[in-house]
Amino acid sequence: MKNPVSLKIKNQLRIFEKELRISVNGAGPTVKESYLETIAAGGKRLRPAIVFLCSQFKGADKDGVNKAALAVEIIHAASLIHDDIMDGAAIRRGQPTIYSKRGSQAALRTGDYLFAKSFLLLNETGNFEAVSILSTAVKKLSEGEIEQIKSAFNKEQELSYYYKKIGCKTAALFRASAELGALFGNADQNYIRALGDYAENLGVAFQVYDDVLDIEADEEVLGKSLGTDLKDGTLTLPIIMALKESNSQRLADIFTSENNNEQDIAEGLHIIVSTKAAEKSKKEAKRFVDKATQCLAPIKEEKLKKELEAICEYTIERYN
Amino acid sequence: MKNPVSLKIKNQLRIFEKELRISVNGAGPTVKESYLETIAAGGKRLRPAIVFLCSQFKGADKDGVNKAALAVEIIHAASLIHDDIMDGAAIRRGQPTIYSKRGSQAALRTGDYLFAKSFLLLNETGNFEAVSILSTAVKKLSEGEIEQIKSAFNKEQELSYYYKKIGCKTAALFRASAELGALFGNADQNYIRALGDYAENLGVAFQVYDDVLDIEADEEVLGKSLGTDLKDGTLTLPIIMALKESNSQRLADIFTSENNNEQDIAEGLHIIVSTKAAEKSKKEAKRFVDKATQCLAPIKEEKLKKELEAICEYTIERYN
Repeated sequence: MKNPVSLKIKNQLRIFEKELRISVNGAGPTVKESYLETIAAGGKRLRPAIVFLCSQFKGADKDGVNKAALAVEIIHAASLIHDDIMDGAAIRRGQPTIYSKRGSQAALRTGDYLFAKSFLLLNETGNFEAVSILSTAVKKLSEGEIEQIKSAFNKEQELSYYYKKIGCKTAALFRASAELGALFGNADQNYIRALGDYAENLGVAFQVYDDVLDIEADEEVLGKSLGTDLKDGTLTLPIIMALKESNSQRLADIFTSENNNEQDIAEGLHIIVSTKAAEKSKKEAKRFVDKATQCLAPIKEEKLKKELEAICEYTIERYN
Repeated sequence: MKNPVSLKIKNQLRIFEKELRISVNGAGPTVKESYLETIAAGGKRLRPAIVFLCSQFKGADKDGVNKAALAVEIIHAASLIHDDIMDGAAIRRGQPTIYSKRGSQAALRTGDYLFAKSFLLLNETGNFEAVSILSTAVKKLSEGEIEQIKSAFNKEQELSYYYKKIGCKTAALFRASAELGALFGNADQNYIRALGDYAENLGVAFQVYDDVLDIEADEEVLGKSLGTDLKDGTLTLPIIMALKESNSQRLADIFTSENNNEQDIAEGLHIIVSTKAAEKSKKEAKRFVDKATQCLAPIKEEKLKKELEAICEYTIERYN
């Protein structure tokens, strides 16, 4: 499915891309190169797109909107760089990770630098609420990742726990993006809340769909190998459902083992695909997308509403 | 040497200690426990002490001063937690590190959380300049650590490079502490700059003296084993001087090797101690302490000036 954002947003994203590239020019060579490689490797720029989308109101503070878009994408880059240390990931978006090229220590400190840079950027707007929104999101993001580590290789996780985890790990920064966009977009508190709720549900749908992609996507299109969640012992929705559906001891053994080889992972994926876990998980993603669109009820601007709904559909159809 | 801070500052630090303990109560169990263990393991609270010391002017914003003191100590804790991942350190301040108890992943994200928490706290003051001071310090801190990694096991480092490195790694947060204290202390720009310069030089002296302690301190008093810099390939002032003084190929070999055993390190330390590197380095620390006190020239309050000078002496005599 083609990305449905309007020409206006596409133009904003084009300018954004240039600003993103120069936004850590003040850093030393290691940070700068690591950062440039991370953003050059691609990414959908979904978070800045949400910032721009949610800022389309009269009296928007354009400079604030731009800084917010940069801040959320820089936080996202920092978080990915830290993720890759934790996962020991060699490849991200089809490119070698900073961790694999420069080592965990450089990756760790580059991430730290980028977190600070992001706060500094947003602080320049002089908007306390904005800095507070971003800090809160980073706190949640960190805790979401910690929950993911703590629960690794444990198959006895409640569904509610899974949703809480991805709520922090992914949806919090989606919510922050929408809130920041609306805040600098001069929207009133009702709108900020509604758009935040919308984006949080969108973030959950996005993560569920991402977890499905790890089971059944085309590796070349995806830019990474499948089955990483199974390998890392990350209990995702399709894995939870496949364990329940198949009642397969072999799948349970593969999931709880930390020493799987490629064949084990392929076998595990085969069992998951043989159940209806992927389809059922996609239905769950759809349910959250529906919740997201329901959150848009207070939004009176019909054109904007349609745009935000289109992003919902795109999120759960993005590789179709 | 006894810590020379006044009763007033000691009282502030006593209240601070309680506030420090409850300041991340909102976090989940892993972050909270990791944080509490880190601060419970001790530490000199030198950075908050600098905040309080530099805030003693008429019309000080007490709430802002307190938040700044918490923010710098939380950043310091986050940085130590990240340090220990990089160094693979098992022990810090005589206690097992978060990294060794809970693994690198939990340590990584706990640090991230604490960085965000620190910005959130300072943002609550509504003072943009304060958030900017802290972000700038964290950026420098991260880059200082990266320089340290990049230059590891390389004995061909210029002295100016060593000073630049510790200027970022240590002195930047000292400067930020003084600037934040003075800023919330309602000091004028001249004073903020003078106190910042003072603390930056104090930070360099502190780090040089710390590097000497790694060569010749009492391990039990220090709470960690000696020779960690030699082991990690971190070129410190005493090592630079010992290499030059002794012209010892054996010391050069030990420094540049990544595979030293305990006996090699002991031998390396023995060579360093046999030169006058420690004494000469202490003289360098004293030189920076003198620079720090010179920076206090614009400060008219004699009592405050004496207090700040006493901290200087303490910094380079703290285990005597």
